[in-house]
Amino acid sequence: MWTWQHPVKLVFGVGALAQIETNLEQQGLQSGVVIASPSAVRSGAAQQVCDQSGGRVQYIISDLAPNPSVQNVRDCARKAKEAGAKFIVAIGGGSAMDCAKAVCAVLAMDCDPMELMDGRKVTAAFPLVAIPTTAGSGSEVSPGSVLSDPGTERKLSVSTPLFYPVFAIIDPALTYSCPRRLTAVSGLDALMHSLDALGSVKATEMTDMLAIEGARLCFASLTKAVEQADEAARKDMMLASVLGAMAFSHAGTTGSHATSYLLTAHYHIDHGEACAFTGDAWWRLNAAARPVLEDYSKRLGFASADALADEINVLKKRFGMCMTLGQAGIALADLEEVAKAALAAGNMPNNVAKPGLEGIIAFLTEKA
Amino acid sequence: MWTWQHPVKLVFGVGALAQIETNLEQQGLQSGVVIASPSAVRSGAAQQVCDQSGGRVQYIISDLAPNPSVQNVRDCARKAKEAGAKFIVAIGGGSAMDCAKAVCAVLAMDCDPMELMDGRKVTAAFPLVAIPTTAGSGSEVSPGSVLSDPGTERKLSVSTPLFYPVFAIIDPALTYSCPRRLTAVSGLDALMHSLDALGSVKATEMTDMLAIEGARLCFASLTKAVEQADEAARKDMMLASVLGAMAFSHAGTTGSHATSYLLTAHYHIDHGEACAFTGDAWWRLNAAARPVLEDYSKRLGFASADALADEINVLKKRFGMCMTLGQAGIALADLEEVAKAALAAGNMPNNVAKPGLEGIIAFLTEKA
Repeated sequence: MWTWQHPVKLVFGVGALAQIETNLEQQGLQSGVVIASPSAVRSGAAQQVCDQSGGRVQYIISDLAPNPSVQNVRDCARKAKEAGAKFIVAIGGGSAMDCAKAVCAVLAMDCDPMELMDGRKVTAAFPLVAIPTTAGSGSEVSPGSVLSDPGTERKLSVSTPLFYPVFAIIDPALTYSCPRRLTAVSGLDALMHSLDALGSVKATEMTDMLAIEGARLCFASLTKAVEQADEAARKDMMLASVLGAMAFSHAGTTGSHATSYLLTAHYHIDHGEACAFTGDAWWRLNAAARPVLEDYSKRLGFASADALADEINVLKKRFGMCMTLGQAGIALADLEEVAKAALAAGNMPNNVAKPGLEGIIAFLTEKA
Repeated sequence: MWTWQHPVKLVFGVGALAQIETNLEQQGLQSGVVIASPSAVRSGAAQQVCDQSGGRVQYIISDLAPNPSVQNVRDCARKAKEAGAKFIVAIGGGSAMDCAKAVCAVLAMDCDPMELMDGRKVTAAFPLVAIPTTAGSGSEVSPGSVLSDPGTERKLSVSTPLFYPVFAIIDPALTYSCPRRLTAVSGLDALMHSLDALGSVKATEMTDMLAIEGARLCFASLTKAVEQADEAARKDMMLASVLGAMAFSHAGTTGSHATSYLLTAHYHIDHGEACAFTGDAWWRLNAAARPVLEDYSKRLGFASADALADEINVLKKRFGMCMTLGQAGIALADLEEVAKAALAAGNMPNNVAKPGLEGIIAFLTEKA
């Protein structure tokens, strides 16, 4: 038995940004501010949001850090409040959207973001409009937000239906200028969202359908999107990102994401690259634990689940991602710590395969 | 550019009916009545809704006709009002759900259903919970309702987001006792929803994904569902029905549905059978007009679009559907009338191929 409900309205297509005024009007959203990543400010996209909003969005908040901190959220919320914002438009990558979600809660609950970090439940949130400029995080259609407190090295991952954007404007043209490496790591994140959702104990027919199509688009188009900045391929990747996130919004992420957090926190490996680092191994393990993944691999055009896992490695190598422990900067002596952190991650119980500490150390050792 | 928004919460799985109380509670729905098809009353499913609702649903309205009429809706609305209903639970096939949607509008607008028939716009509707007992109409996830006025032979087709059910309980066990022929005609309707959506000028990447998966499930499981009443196959068909309807809710239905209306009204051919009657021809025409359907046919495991169309005919023949004009009771002299009615249907402009009067007469003539 499963349930499915996905309330986010998608406005998808090249030029979709021009639809913002119509959609704000339909939702009765009158007076908001933009929270924008630095690159969305530089590219002019944040200003475009204001210009095309029919006067409904008048102020840009832009001093964002890559992984939004409590202080970041506090500053953004203060500025949004001063500007009289009744809703937020987030434009940028996953960090901008994550930050904006927390700001929406802080504004509606009239609290300090540290209270959220300290465990206060999100009970209300201002309406959010999400406009991604990378194809990967899928935060525009997901209910999740991650917040950091660098002072205490704490990380807060909140998932609540209140964080679903009211609508998402998914305009592939916003990714046309995305640099090669960011396109690659974002795209690998999108691929891992789909593959993780397929390896979840919470997978359903609905999440499988979305994840298979998300993965299909990644395998078909990620290379062209990265190497040729091909516009049709970048559009495919934008859709792949949406579908993968719709899948993991219900099925959860699993092994590759669980293993990635320490790789990002301690070894400073970008999120998508960190997920992909073990993505091949998790796919092989999960296909053994969930035999239908063997069929799905064939439906995706591969001879077997093993062949699909091999292709993940082909992509990683092609895009210059770290392939070995050495390249990742991980000493053999540290593998136990990496495996322990993976097992302790909140999403690891979602994973269908249960390799345990020894199993994780074993596949990591193979990357020596 | 396209938009996507599908607000219906799905509760899917064998035994899902038992989730009704929890879901009514989550939605704050306190006091409702059931509008049930005669077979849902006979099977005990309608009573089960009351029994499992925690006292939130206490009264069953059951005198429904197969194609709901204005008088039907008027009677049901009066009874629901007398019972103090604040929401409606529809259980049955497409007719029960169509009737309940109109009742929801009549109750909220406090009007007579004839006013809707006379063109009054639906501006409000009571909350609706939909529980299908056949796998085909997909009305549980669609915004449409069809109402008839037998007196004047008028038919009203209304599609409004107000008609989306709040949630749909999709319990494949409710179809286990569905008779062979009803399983076949319902299943062909589900298949035609998916194939029609693929042949629509309004098709998008999202509707294509849903329709391809819907069609895949039909080709994989319809025969087993019909001939062996196989439970896993009936579950697949329940999902196929949902996916096909989610697709046509956005892309619209097209040629096969447009051509079916007169076949049902004048020749008394069941809806699903009437759609399938020309489904093969429309698929061939649409594949020529939308070349990606050739690729999709291959992705569905067929050698070509032609081979997929042939399989539609194999299914029809296997299930004892009418294959020829003679079997359908249509004289050659009447083909122009059939073609004219198809061209005049409101959904025909959605169709990607534009064969015109001559083209439709030509493919119908081949069925002589």
